[in-house]
Amino acid sequence: MPTSYSISGFPEWSPEQRLIEKRVIEKIEESFRLHGFINIETCGVESYESLIKKGDGKEIYRLSKEGSGEENLGLHFDLTLPLSRYVLERRGELLFPFRRYQIQKVWRGERPQNGRYREFYQADIDIVSQGELPGHFEYEVPMAMCDTLRSLSPLGLGSFSIHINNRKLSEGFYRAIGIEEIEETLRRIDKLDKLGAEKTREILKEVAGEERSLACIELAEIKEKDPFVFEKKIEEICARWDVGEGSEERDLMKEGVRDAEAVLQALVRSGFEGACIDCSIARGLDYYTGCVYETFLDDDPSLGSICSGGRYERLIKTQKQSYPGVGMSIGVSRLLSYLFTKAKADRVSPAAVLVAVWNEEERWRSDEVAKALRKRKIACEVSPSAAKIGSQIKRADRLLIPYVWFVTSQGSEVKDIRTGRQEKADPLSWEPDPKYAADIIVRE
Amino acid sequence: MPTSYSISGFPEWSPEQRLIEKRVIEKIEESFRLHGFINIETCGVESYESLIKKGDGKEIYRLSKEGSGEENLGLHFDLTLPLSRYVLERRGELLFPFRRYQIQKVWRGERPQNGRYREFYQADIDIVSQGELPGHFEYEVPMAMCDTLRSLSPLGLGSFSIHINNRKLSEGFYRAIGIEEIEETLRRIDKLDKLGAEKTREILKEVAGEERSLACIELAEIKEKDPFVFEKKIEEICARWDVGEGSEERDLMKEGVRDAEAVLQALVRSGFEGACIDCSIARGLDYYTGCVYETFLDDDPSLGSICSGGRYERLIKTQKQSYPGVGMSIGVSRLLSYLFTKAKADRVSPAAVLVAVWNEEERWRSDEVAKALRKRKIACEVSPSAAKIGSQIKRADRLLIPYVWFVTSQGSEVKDIRTGRQEKADPLSWEPDPKYAADIIVRE
Repeated sequence: MPTSYSISGFPEWSPEQRLIEKRVIEKIEESFRLHGFINIETCGVESYESLIKKGDGKEIYRLSKEGSGEENLGLHFDLTLPLSRYVLERRGELLFPFRRYQIQKVWRGERPQNGRYREFYQADIDIVSQGELPGHFEYEVPMAMCDTLRSLSPLGLGSFSIHINNRKLSEGFYRAIGIEEIEETLRRIDKLDKLGAEKTREILKEVAGEERSLACIELAEIKEKDPFVFEKKIEEICARWDVGEGSEERDLMKEGVRDAEAVLQALVRSGFEGACIDCSIARGLDYYTGCVYETFLDDDPSLGSICSGGRYERLIKTQKQSYPGVGMSIGVSRLLSYLFTKAKADRVSPAAVLVAVWNEEERWRSDEVAKALRKRKIACEVSPSAAKIGSQIKRADRLLIPYVWFVTSQGSEVKDIRTGRQEKADPLSWEPDPKYAADIIVRE
Repeated sequence: MPTSYSISGFPEWSPEQRLIEKRVIEKIEESFRLHGFINIETCGVESYESLIKKGDGKEIYRLSKEGSGEENLGLHFDLTLPLSRYVLERRGELLFPFRRYQIQKVWRGERPQNGRYREFYQADIDIVSQGELPGHFEYEVPMAMCDTLRSLSPLGLGSFSIHINNRKLSEGFYRAIGIEEIEETLRRIDKLDKLGAEKTREILKEVAGEERSLACIELAEIKEKDPFVFEKKIEEICARWDVGEGSEERDLMKEGVRDAEAVLQALVRSGFEGACIDCSIARGLDYYTGCVYETFLDDDPSLGSICSGGRYERLIKTQKQSYPGVGMSIGVSRLLSYLFTKAKADRVSPAAVLVAVWNEEERWRSDEVAKALRKRKIACEVSPSAAKIGSQIKRADRLLIPYVWFVTSQGSEVKDIRTGRQEKADPLSWEPDPKYAADIIVRE
């Protein structure tokens, strides 16, 4: 489990944990690139006004400087707002649809708790269009995320479920039964997972009234893997709450059902069995307008969603043009708190070889061997001191470096300190055993 | 040159520029790993008190939150202070000497100017010991940096010079001629490059007096590649300013000369011709105690030092134990402002293939091909729309994607849009031409 760290909420890992974090990020990035997403990096700050418009002031870190006081700058709390600014600033030079990925730290001044940090990595993909966003992107993004998460299984990630909902479905139903405060209702339904049905109904009553709050809970409890059964359940709930065919609200619901099913079917077609339509998925953010997604680990659902997102119609816009998009974000740091229990580092140092030193006068010989090995992309460290050979081997052992290299004027020998085998070796041709290439192993 | 960006001093690159930044960081990281440095990442913040103790309050960004006001946190302005805290916190679990690398953004609220940003990447290596730090690390670190910078030549980095000085040399000389305010003298000598000899002497007079300021300038003007000539010049200046043999100060100078020469000779031995001892190198920071280094590009010295550092004896310590170290830091963002004029991206999208779509009903066929290609690690994008083939090819062309793939029920054909050649292809075996593998090319 995570090592303690001194600044509350700001995690810092041991070198071994950092290695796992790096490999996770590399795998994610490789998958994003295979799907043709283009990398950008935005700066860590945004104008304070733009942050406060979308986020909670109590959680936003504002910057100030001695002498000049508060600046009009704060640290970004997600990667969607920065994307929005980036796209608008560069709309003249980017080619749309713009497929971008971004893997960066974000900051939120929340109360630190299990799996929630004040500084953490997010890994986002978004596809942003100009004018119209074709519907197929609503399944292309979760399909890419599905591939990405599956690529983490060699690092210990188990099976997971992608839960799909659609804002049109919820909104249509809410409107049909007479609820007006759609956003507030969604925000409260979003707590269902945390609070349970009873308490959620209590907080729903204030905006939806006694009876309608029951209807909202009933809708939220529909969760199906089979489109046929799902549609039947939607028809039943509509019948029960007198949502008649042909109304504008019912049509909106149908659009939502159709779009959510399209995502489900595309995921099934791609060979993924873990998708379902889950009407409890609300997402706290107000900008979503179509499909919304959350992802849960099958063996640790209590961790919460590890990959979420949705479609937004009007988040990115100028007076003349809108740039609708769909995106999802992996909570990398949250995922890590789980992966640290599954994977462990098989290296501390990246070196494959520790080149021993007999005495300081002959250190140059060891430097020469190291130079030759590095030229051939074999990572190595020259022993920090000409201590007894036993203690030089001990250093290699502690750093999980598999080989120790001995240089003499007659030539070199290399010892595999895990097997004890020692043999003659030439720095111009010797190769480490490929079995030592993997630096992360998954625990049994 | 850098594109404009909206938040002054906080650079943001186009996707093409970001690709260059990523490749630069990857190359640097590969070299650090080949030299056996262990990666860590520290959080972006430090306690405000620890920052203000080492840095300039006017340049440190402090955090505050609505409701709770100013926090006891600020953004780190370098990676040395975070390393110092990290090492002390984990001194019980780390193995010393601890070789670490760290590549992260840092923040400084300076006035933005050419090559100077408020948010920028640094790439640091340090070797930190417990108790004693053997002298050979003073050349091992610049040798590793030398290899690292040379590994950037395929990205357009030209030849460079590493300038070495030693604090003991300067301090010994200053003390010998009667200067007491050593740190302040060094801080002012550090301006020589910017202000020139005349003006530097003016500001030196205030701390060193009329005549001695001349001696300081004279020392600073010694710059030599040849150790023999260098020693002669040191003897001459000592004779001229009555620094007698046998004194404590003269002995300190000799230590400095010996240590600086050891670095110079090790660099020469490793085949690097660009090193010199340069007594003008002072480094503004007060914690250096031994060798100090700066690195300049031969074809653009006006950019300033792109890689600097030195040895520090007492920066990291507890009451009982000190952890002396030696480290250097590459100013990645500054380097980029130069490399952007030398290298250009040969890709926008990471995709090698754009899979065309004939009509939306058959999009699934293109999805299948994409899936097969990705499984074989060939990055691709499925065309965003079933537009006319000409406009699908145009998208590939604009994103510098070399191939367009056509799927029919009878099989596939792939077109190299750069050569115009089109041929039958099977997604289970087709490979892109290796000539399209490099995504950065250096301008003629």
